[in-house]
This record gives sequence, structure tokens and C-alpha cells, in this order.
Amino acid sequence: MEPKQKKLKIEDYKKPDLPSTHKELLDLYKQRRAEKQKHKEEKLIQQWEQEKKQREEEIAKAKEEEDEEEKSKLLGRHYTVSIALPGSILDNAQSRELRSYLAGQIARAAVVFNVDEIVVFDETNALSSDGTIEDAKKQGCLQLKLILEYLECPQYLRKGLFKRHEFLQYAGLLNPLDSPHHMRATDDMPYREGVVLKKPLRPNQGSFADVGLLKKEVQLDKQIEPHVRVTVKMDKNADGKKRKGKVVAPSTPRKKLGLYWGYTVRLAANLGEVFTQCPYDEGYDLTVGTSERGESIDSLEIPTFKHALVVFGGVQGLEASLEVDPNLDEDDPSLLFHHYVNSCPDQGSRTIRTEEAVLITMSALRPKILEAAKIANQQ
Amino acid sequence: MEPKQKKLKIEDYKKPDLPSTHKELLDLYKQRRAEKQKHKEEKLIQQWEQEKKQREEEIAKAKEEEDEEEKSKLLGRHYTVSIALPGSILDNAQSRELRSYLAGQIARAAVVFNVDEIVVFDETNALSSDGTIEDAKKQGCLQLKLILEYLECPQYLRKGLFKRHEFLQYAGLLNPLDSPHHMRATDDMPYREGVVLKKPLRPNQGSFADVGLLKKEVQLDKQIEPHVRVTVKMDKNADGKKRKGKVVAPSTPRKKLGLYWGYTVRLAANLGEVFTQCPYDEGYDLTVGTSERGESIDSLEIPTFKHALVVFGGVQGLEASLEVDPNLDEDDPSLLFHHYVNSCPDQGSRTIRTEEAVLITMSALRPKILEAAKIANQQ
Ligand SMILES: C[S@@+](CC[C@H](N)C(=O)[O-])C[C@H]1O[C@@H](n2cnc3c(N)ncnc32)[C@H](O)[C@@H]1O
Ligand SMILES: C[S@@+](CC[C@H](N)C(=O)[O-])C[C@H]1O[C@@H](n2cnc3c(N)ncnc32)[C@H](O)[C@@H]1O
Repeated sequence: MEPKQKKLKIEDYKKPDLPSTHKELLDLYKQRRAEKQKHKEEKLIQQWEQEKKQREEEIAKAKEEEDEEEKSKLLGRHYTVSIALPGSILDNAQSRELRSYLAGQIARAAVVFNVDEIVVFDETNALSSDGTIEDAKKQGCLQLKLILEYLECPQYLRKGLFKRHEFLQYAGLLNPLDSPHHMRATDDMPYREGVVLKKPLRPNQGSFADVGLLKKEVQLDKQIEPHVRVTVKMDKNADGKKRKGKVVAPSTPRKKLGLYWGYTVRLAANLGEVFTQCPYDEGYDLTVGTSERGESIDSLEIPTFKHALVVFGGVQGLEASLEVDPNLDEDDPSLLFHHYVNSCPDQGSRTIRTEEAVLITMSALRPKILEAAKIANQQ
Repeated sequence: MEPKQKKLKIEDYKKPDLPSTHKELLDLYKQRRAEKQKHKEEKLIQQWEQEKKQREEEIAKAKEEEDEEEKSKLLGRHYTVSIALPGSILDNAQSRELRSYLAGQIARAAVVFNVDEIVVFDETNALSSDGTIEDAKKQGCLQLKLILEYLECPQYLRKGLFKRHEFLQYAGLLNPLDSPHHMRATDDMPYREGVVLKKPLRPNQGSFADVGLLKKEVQLDKQIEPHVRVTVKMDKNADGKKRKGKVVAPSTPRKKLGLYWGYTVRLAANLGEVFTQCPYDEGYDLTVGTSERGESIDSLEIPTFKHALVVFGGVQGLEASLEVDPNLDEDDPSLLFHHYVNSCPDQGSRTIRTEEAVLITMSALRPKILEAAKIANQQ
């Protein structure tokens, strides 16, 4: 049986909790005060808990960052390696197919040895300041640059980033670079290369990018022009439905995790510009010229460095490259470098071709570079 | 005025020196005896001089031989380096032109690193014992062998030694080896490669050979079948008119003067035959297998050796080569070799191609081989 209800007047319907007696009123106030107190306490607890959670999150994030910092110290690669070579080497190929193949060989050699930058320099004085070639016959530089860029770009992005071009006619015959940033759709990688999609966006919403995943789109943390190539740090808590990622510098995978992340390509109008237009603020602090007339690489010791540059000559060697440089008055190329090395003493052929010299030289330098990096990490 | 002549009788015409008086007769005998004596003395002197000359020549020759021995100790190379790789790599090329080019790349790499023998092995079980290929599609081995041999042969001898062959269709596009035994007509070299000419010979007369000189023929010290390729030690005292030379072993220029003298090519029906059919009596006393799964080449130390062999795999690596070998029951290729090395730790591409691996590996091995040779020479 329900307790018998107090009989209410008409007003009571409007303010149903108004008490009818003084005693009741006092009780009500008491009750309310208690409720208020409890509510206040609960709120305080809630607030405290929220603050605790936030603090914990902050700590976790700091720890993660610290971990990453720590990880980056352990895993990251904190130096770069550049190579430079003249575009004219293409002009000496025996057929159009072999011309492309040669460019592919250079790209492969660079990737095998984790080269971060390839500088293609003109040694014919045919490149004008706007990056076009004056002498139509001397297009080695431009073709070399284009093929290098094309091969470096992950396959799934090429269609969006490259137009058809006669220079790319034989690109289908070239060997793939197969580097870590050329990932398959199913690879689970902390970073991915992508291209920004042209898609209508709401304000304050990041752009979408194709990063080569099967469920294609990833939402970025920023709005970026469509068709721009981006390096994306994939969010960990992607639940598979809605993927998100942060735009980072292309150097981040290398610096944080030591991942090789492809190379950039730069055109230099002459040998001098290889040095003067260095993209790193500090410049190249280790420069190596290569020649059969250099000193034996066996006695070369490499000091710790931040940005190394290894320079190769063309059919006529670096002497010829130097000769046509309008700004450099030297005629002894060895004076341009910290080291001028013969990377194949006792060679059994009278001449080593540039594309061979890249593999031979980088293979001989690899343990020396590693040694220098080890020492740098211990410091 | 002429001195008045003694009047002679008719007999004097027949025996003009017979004297007419006793006194004259005695004088004549005396004179004859004196002449005879003088003649005897002269002959003795002559004999003595001849003996002296002979002795001097013998001494000079001995000295020269001693010098050569000494020179050979100082200059000669007393070890060999072989490489082995599967012919199947050609079958994976993207075009017929690139298929030939790949063979050319192997030849170039071998020559740059003074390789003495290239073993082309079949990893498809398609090669029958008579050296022909059963599966027409798998002719990589035969084509690789032919192109390697063609390129190794000095240009001036090719016409005499090679028939036209479809395998050689793109040989004109390949880069020349430019090794020391590919000499120009005007090079003054102690040794020359030649081919025996088909020319009628007198008994005891040596054959003639074309050794690529402008005044073409050289007479050898032996009679040899026409069309045979020979290594000729050029006689020093060639006066320009009639050149002579001695036939020597192709290894002589290397052993005596440390000259690189090209490579031989050998076909092996499987991986096992690479080892078992070694042309050197002592066998290979240093064998190196290559794989990304090998141990870092940086920690490899090479002992002194006589005959080194470095083996490369094809598209699927040495595991695949081993798998099809009907005689080898192992499935771990590392067990076949003294050393199993990764010659490019930290490679920036997921896979290194065989033709790249040859240059990379040989460049990394070069200083280690040199060190081992130095130690061997000191012993
Ligand atoms: C065909 S070579 C140049 C040959 C040219 N005749 C000369 O004397 O320099 C092309 C390039 O390969 C590289 N190269 C060739 N042989 C080399 C060696 N033994 N050591 C280092 N680099 C070499 C150099 O960069 C050279 O400029
Ligand atoms: C395309 S690779 C073979 C790749 C194959 N997937 C494997 O796992 O071995 C062809 C050959 O190049 C050589 N090679 C490739 N990478 C190498 C490395 N890092 N060190 C030594 N040799 C290597 C080996 O001889 C190999 O058999």
C-alpha cells in the first residue's frame, strides 16, 4: 500500500515542493543544504578526477614525447648524405632506352646507400637561370632530374603528381627503388607519404590525403593545397573507420626512427652551385670529390659530420666540370673538397663509369660514415 | 805500275802456287806453316771469344731471369679472384637490349675489380651435360657466357674468333672493358694477346700471329694451330722489321708483372659444380657467399689465400639456387662457404640486384683482399 499523500492546494501544483508547515520548511532547507553540499562535494570530486586524468594524460604525453626523443636518439639518423653528378652523363648513353636506364641506375644506387639528396649539375653551361636548357641537345640534366624524381615518388602517388612526358617514355622498364617509403597498401607504418586531395572542407577541418591505403583517405591536422605531396604521421588510435594523421617534415621519419625516406633532387647550374646552394643552413661540412687521381680511399678517415656531400664527375672527370664553371677560377678540382679520393685503387679497367663509381664509392664510404656516426652518437 | 810477275809455265795455271825451285818450296812450306799456325791461333781466339760471348750471354740471361723472378715477386700477383653468378639473371631483364646490357655490366664489374674467372651457373636445372640448354626459354646462362667472352676478347681479335650470333645482337651498345690487355696498336707492352694466323710454314719455323700491331704479324717460337688465341711475350730486340715473340700462359702477365689480363668464363650446371669443377689444382681456398642475411662484411677478416671465390645469387637469392641443385642436400647456403656476408648492412632498398651486389661487394672486399695479399707477400 502506498503511503497516504498529503492533500495539496491548487498552488501546490505549481510549486510542488513548497512545504505547508514551518517544520516541513526547516526540514526542506536542511535537506536542500545537504543536497547542495553533496552536489558540491561530488563536483569537487569530479573536478579533481578530471584534473587527475588530465595530469595523467599530460604525463603520458610527456613520457611519450620523452620516449620518442629517447627513441630518436637511439634510432634516429641525425646526419645527411648528398651526392652530386653531372646530367651530361645521360647525353653519352648509346640509346634512348639506355639513357633512361642510366638515370634509373643512379636512383637505385642512391637509395641502396640511403642518400638524402641528389644534386644534378650542368657541366655544359647550357642551363639558364630559370631552370630550362638552352641547348636542346643537352637535356641530360632535365631528364636525369625528372626520372630521379619520378622513381623516388611512391607508385600510388605518381599519377597524381606527374604528367606524361617524353623523358618518362621508358620509365616502365626501370627497376623499382623498393625503399621503405614505397609501402604496400597493407604495410603498417608509423609514417606514410601522401598527396592532398581536392575535396570540399568545413572550416577548421583538416584536408584529406591519399596515403596509399586501401580505405583511401586520411584526414590531416591542417588545411593544405590540393596536389601537394605530404609526409603523414599516422595517428595510433585509428580505429580503421576514420583515419587521421599529422603532417610532418619529410625528414621526420629519418630523424625520429632512422627510416630512409627517399631523396630530394636539386638542379645546379654549375659545379659551384652544388656547394653554394646547399639546402642545409649549416652547409656541407664534409665534402668528398672522386677521381682516379685522388688519394686512396683506404687511408681516408671521416670525421663526425652533419651534412656530407660526395661529388662525381662525368665522362671527362671533375676537371672538365670545373673548367666550364664560369665562377670558379681553379683548375685543380682537389682544392674544392675536404677529401679527393680514388675509391678503387688498382682498378682493372682504364676508366670507371660514373654510375659504377657511385656504387663503388658509396660502398667503400659506408663503413667509414657509419664509424663517424657512431662516434657522433657517443658524444 | 804493277810489280813484274814471275813467268809461269803452263802447269802453273793449274796449280798456281807450286814453286819452281827447292828454295822456293821450302819458303812456301814455311809460309804455309806460319799461316796455319796463325789460322789456328785466330781460330782459338775466335773460339775463345765465342765462348766468352756465350758465357756473357748466359750470365745476362740468368741475371734477366733472376731479375724477372725478383720483379715477379715484387710486381706479380700470386692469387686469383673468381666470381660466380646464375645465368638466370638475364632472363629477368625487361627488354632484349637490357638483357645484353646486364651481361655487359657484369663484365665491367669483373674487370674493374681484376676478377680472373667468372663462373656462370645454372639455377634452373636446364643445362644438360654437353653444355646446351634444354629449355629454350632459359638461355640466360649461354647468352651471359657468350657476351662475357666476347667483351673480354680484345677488339682486334673478335672478328677472327667469334661468329655472328643472335646473342651478340646488341653487343655494339655495350660499354668496352678497357682493360690493360685490350691495347691499342701503338701501345708498347711486354705482352700482347694474339690469334694464330693461317699461313704456310717452313719446318722448324714458328707460327705467325696477329697481336693487333700496325705492322701486323709476329713470329712465335712454336707452331700452333691457326685461329687459336695466344698470349705472346714480345721479344725486346724487335727491330721493327721482323717481330718475334714467345707464347706464354695467359696467367703469365699477372704472375710476372701483376698485370690484369682479363677473365676466363666457365659454365657450371648447378651451384655445386661451381666448387667441384674449380680449374685450380688446389681448389678455392677462400669462398664467400653473399646475402642480405649474411653477417656484416664490416667485421669480415680475410686470411691469406691463393684462390678466392665470391658467389652471388639471382632474383631469389642463393637459397633458390641451392634448392634446385640435384646433388646438394643442404638448404642453408651459408654452410657452403667459409664466409656468408651481407655486403651492404642498412641498405635503403628492400633488395639489391645481383649486378649491383657485384660492384658493392667487390668494393667492400677490395681493401680486405689487398691486406691479405700484403701479409702473404711478407711471409
Ligand atoms: C669516366 S670517369 C672520368 C674519367 C676521366 N677520364 C678522369 O680522368 O677523371 C667518371 C667519374 O667516375 C668517378 N671515378 C672514376 N674512377 C674513379 C676512381 N678510381 N675513384 C673515384 N672515382 C672515380 C669520378 O667521379 C669520375 O669523374
Ligand atoms: C635480388 S638479390 C636476392 C634477394 C633475395 N630475395 C634474397 O633474399 O636473397 C640477388 C643477389 O644479390 C646479392 N645481394 C643482395 N643484397 C645483398 C646484401 N645486402 N649483401 C650481399 N649480397 C647481397 C646476393 O648475392 C643475392 O643473392
